[in-house]
Amino acid sequence: MERKGLLLVFSGPSGTGKGTVCKALVEGNLDLRLSISATTRSPRTGEVEGVNYIFLKKEDFKRMIAEGQFLEWAKVYGNYYGTPLPFIQKALEKGNDMMLEIDIQGAFQVREKIPEAVLIFVAPPSMADLKLRLNARGADSPEEIQKRLCCAIEEMKLACEYDYVIINDEVARAVEQAQAIIKAEKCRARYLKTYLAKLISM
Amino acid sequence: MERKGLLLVFSGPSGTGKGTVCKALVEGNLDLRLSISATTRSPRTGEVEGVNYIFLKKEDFKRMIAEGQFLEWAKVYGNYYGTPLPFIQKALEKGNDMMLEIDIQGAFQVREKIPEAVLIFVAPPSMADLKLRLNARGADSPEEIQKRLCCAIEEMKLACEYDYVIINDEVARAVEQAQAIIKAEKCRARYLKTYLAKLISM
Repeated sequence: MERKGLLLVFSGPSGTGKGTVCKALVEGNLDLRLSISATTRSPRTGEVEGVNYIFLKKEDFKRMIAEGQFLEWAKVYGNYYGTPLPFIQKALEKGNDMMLEIDIQGAFQVREKIPEAVLIFVAPPSMADLKLRLNARGADSPEEIQKRLCCAIEEMKLACEYDYVIINDEVARAVEQAQAIIKAEKCRARYLKTYLAKLISM
Repeated sequence: MERKGLLLVFSGPSGTGKGTVCKALVEGNLDLRLSISATTRSPRTGEVEGVNYIFLKKEDFKRMIAEGQFLEWAKVYGNYYGTPLPFIQKALEKGNDMMLEIDIQGAFQVREKIPEAVLIFVAPPSMADLKLRLNARGADSPEEIQKRLCCAIEEMKLACEYDYVIINDEVARAVEQAQAIIKAEKCRARYLKTYLAKLISM
């Protein structure tokens, strides 16, 4: 009996190691695919169309917004970024689990369009730890780090609106928790509804 | 930071191997305790007070019902059976995960009193498989088996009201799924609410 794929949406403050968790999760799970975003920004050296991004002209992107063809989209520094809805829908219908790594606003847009999406928030073990991690990266100025920490607090306030929160104190443990969430979601009664109906009728 | 324990409620038709799954789950999980029921029936040989059951006089049981001291209770063939609420509450407050193995009516009574209880339905892989298992047990007459199968179908119709459904096609796999559900439930945003609030304020 065929079952639809799961739509998993990961968000979390900058510096929580969300990217590392998502990467490890995809690598260890053959049924799980990372969604590819569309963007209007120019390809950078080495970026491949259809692998890193789907590169679109601004007029095409805007037309697709008007046609409701995005699961979620945002404009960042003059460029558009978004997740094409047909791409996700096709993958889910085929039974593939799809993973999005997007910001909070995007996650809530997804929930509105696909209420059965599973929203997972990756949180730092403490704000002090997040500060340490941002400092250790050495990528940002003290002012930039302060700004990121303020953002993180605002984002953390919305974490309880998510379905799940993974406290990333250790990557292996965080990946294990994400795997458990995927396994558990496949046992959700609402996910198995059609399956159960068939089971009774057999 | 202390967290409350989880309350897990297992139900499922007779013959699905729910008892085997619950037993394996408790044995492999030190934090998980199987709840002890109270009953008004007489102890059978070898049954120990406070281990197998809490044995109560009928008048005491009825008084406790009137005082709302049961999380759930039922009268079966003239005897009362029930789960004492204070016992469960104390365990959860201490952070112990508690497991109940009760029927559907009991499970819905629990959900009414403790909405955050996690309801897990153990289902057979197919009705044909359930029939095979009931036959293989050799414990029931053909009429009795037919009655159990009819009951099973009625119960299966309510499975989608549960939070999770575990299809028990293989005990090891079913236990793994139950373990994943426990791990995932501890990542539920609603479960971590207090923790998250503290995390932001630190």
